[in-house]
Amino acid sequence: MVELAVCLAPDTPDEVPVLADAITGTGARLVPLEQARALVWTGMLDGFPNPLPDNIEWVQLKLAGIESFLDAGLIDDRRVWSNASGFYAANVAEHALGMLIAGLHQFVPSARHGWAKAAIDPAVRQLHGSTVTIVGAGGIGRELIPRLAACGARVLAVNRSGSPVTGAAETVPVTELDSVWARTDHVVIAAPSNAGTRHLIGESVFRALPRHAWIVNVARGPLVDQDALVDALQAGEIAGAALDVTDPEPLPDDHPLWQFDNVLITPHVANPASTLLATMAPFVAENIRRFVAGETLLAQRDPHLDY
Amino acid sequence: MVELAVCLAPDTPDEVPVLADAITGTGARLVPLEQARALVWTGMLDGFPNPLPDNIEWVQLKLAGIESFLDAGLIDDRRVWSNASGFYAANVAEHALGMLIAGLHQFVPSARHGWAKAAIDPAVRQLHGSTVTIVGAGGIGRELIPRLAACGARVLAVNRSGSPVTGAAETVPVTELDSVWARTDHVVIAAPSNAGTRHLIGESVFRALPRHAWIVNVARGPLVDQDALVDALQAGEIAGAALDVTDPEPLPDDHPLWQFDNVLITPHVANPASTLLATMAPFVAENIRRFVAGETLLAQRDPHLDY
Repeated sequence: MVELAVCLAPDTPDEVPVLADAITGTGARLVPLEQARALVWTGMLDGFPNPLPDNIEWVQLKLAGIESFLDAGLIDDRRVWSNASGFYAANVAEHALGMLIAGLHQFVPSARHGWAKAAIDPAVRQLHGSTVTIVGAGGIGRELIPRLAACGARVLAVNRSGSPVTGAAETVPVTELDSVWARTDHVVIAAPSNAGTRHLIGESVFRALPRHAWIVNVARGPLVDQDALVDALQAGEIAGAALDVTDPEPLPDDHPLWQFDNVLITPHVANPASTLLATMAPFVAENIRRFVAGETLLAQRDPHLDY
Repeated sequence: MVELAVCLAPDTPDEVPVLADAITGTGARLVPLEQARALVWTGMLDGFPNPLPDNIEWVQLKLAGIESFLDAGLIDDRRVWSNASGFYAANVAEHALGMLIAGLHQFVPSARHGWAKAAIDPAVRQLHGSTVTIVGAGGIGRELIPRLAACGARVLAVNRSGSPVTGAAETVPVTELDSVWARTDHVVIAAPSNAGTRHLIGESVFRALPRHAWIVNVARGPLVDQDALVDALQAGEIAGAALDVTDPEPLPDDHPLWQFDNVLITPHVANPASTLLATMAPFVAENIRRFVAGETLLAQRDPHLDY
C-alpha cells in the first residue's frame, strides 16, 4: 500500500466510483487540490486549474491526444505529466478490426437493405490473406497487429522512425509512405493528429491504392482529406471507408458520406466516453504505484514534444 | 505431378477456371464422367448422377453440410466421399468475429441512424476480457479460437465428446451444455444441423445467459428457436443477435427480427457462394494428391455417420 495524497477532479469520487476505488485501492488518499501531491484530472481543458498550485508534483490526464493542453500552454516542466496514451488502445484496436471486417463482409448494406443476397454475396471479401498497412503504428498498432495476424493478415507498419514494429512483416518510415500503397490491400489510420499529418490520406493515396482497398480511420478526422475521400468513393478508386472519426464531428446529417453503402461511420465511440474512466482506472492505479516508487510513469509526457 | 482422370461437373472448366486450374495444376486430366476415376461435383443435389457409374472411385462435394445428400441416400460405401468440411472455416470464423465485434460496438444503429452518439456510446461493450462460448467447436472453432484469443477473449468450447479443444480455456461436452451459460458472456453457434441440434438455442438458454450476452449464428438457422429469440430480444433477456443464417432463408421482409437495432442479419454470406469454388480449389488440389498417394482425404466422410 502506498502513501500518496491524490486530488480527483472535476468529477467527484461518487460520480466515478470505479476510478476512485482504483485510486484508494492502492492505499492513496483522496484529498482537495491544495493538499494533494498528484492530480487525476477527469475533465477536458475547460476548468483545468490555472495556475496549478506548486504542491502538485504530477498530473494524470484522461486524454490520449493532449493537443489542446499543449496549445493552451498548460503542460509545464515544473512537474511530471502523464496522459492516457495507450490506455484505450485495446478498445480502439478492437473497433478498427471490427470495422475492417464489417466493411469487407458488407455489414452496412446488410443492416440497411434486408436479405439482399444477390448484391451482397459477390461483394464480400476476406481479410485473411490480405496485407493491412497501419499508418502510425504506436499503442493502437501494438494491440492491432496480433489481432490482424490471428486473422491471417500480413501487417505493414508505418511509423516516424522506421524502426521495426514487433509483429509487423515490414516497417516503413513515414517519409517513404508513398512507396507502400502498391503493396497494400487495406489501410488503418492510427497516427497522431498534428499539422504534419493533416490530410495525410488524400487524393494521391486513393489513386495509388488498389480498387479493392478499404480505409479505416480510428485516429482523428483531419488525417483524411474528406472531400477527396468522397471523390474517390464516387469514382470507385477504393472499395470503401470505415470511419470512427470525421471532420467535423458530428458529421453533418446532409454530408455525402452518409449516402454510401460502402461507408461505415461510427460516432467516435472506438473508445467510448461512457466507459473511459473505468478503462483508465487500472492504469492510474499502476501510475500511482510507479510515482511513489520513483519510476517512469506509463504515458509520461515530455512537455517539449509535439504529440 | 499426379496421374488421375477427374470429371469436373456440372460447371464446365471455363465457368470455374480457378478450380479447373487447381485440378490440372496437380497433373490430373479433366475427362467426361464415364472416363473418370474421380468426380469433383460443383453442384447441389439437383442433377447429381444417380446412379453413379462404377468407374467413379471418389466423389468430392462442395458443401460443408451434406445432409441433403445423406437424406437422398446418395452417399454409398462403394467409393470414397469427401465434402468441404473445414474448407470454408477461415471465411466463416472471420465473419463470426466481425459480427460479434459489430454487435458489441453498435455498428447496426450506427449504419442506420447517423451520428447518434448519445444513444450509441453508452451501449458499446468490449470483446476483450469477455468469455465466448463456441457451441460446436469443430473446423470453424479451430479457426475462430486463435482470433478470439488474440482479441483478449477467453474461449469455452462445447463439442460432442468434451475432449479438449486446442486453445480453449475449457471444453465441455454438449450433454453438459446447460452448465455453461452462467459463465458465458457471448455465444457463437457453429454446430452441425440435424435432428438433435434443432432449436438447441431456445428459451431456457436466453433466460440463463446474462443480459449483456450477444448470440452469433454462423451455422444453420434451425439451431436457434427464432420465435424464442424474438421474445428474448423484446424482453431484454439478451443484448443482441448476429445471424448469418435464419429459418427460413431468405428471412421474410416482414419478419420481426428486421426491426431490432440490436440484430445484425447478413444473407448467408459468411462463406460467399460467389467465391466458394475458388476458396475450395487449393483443398481439392491437396485431396487429388492424397487420393493418388492412397492417403486419407481432407474431410473424408463415413457414409454411416449423421453429420
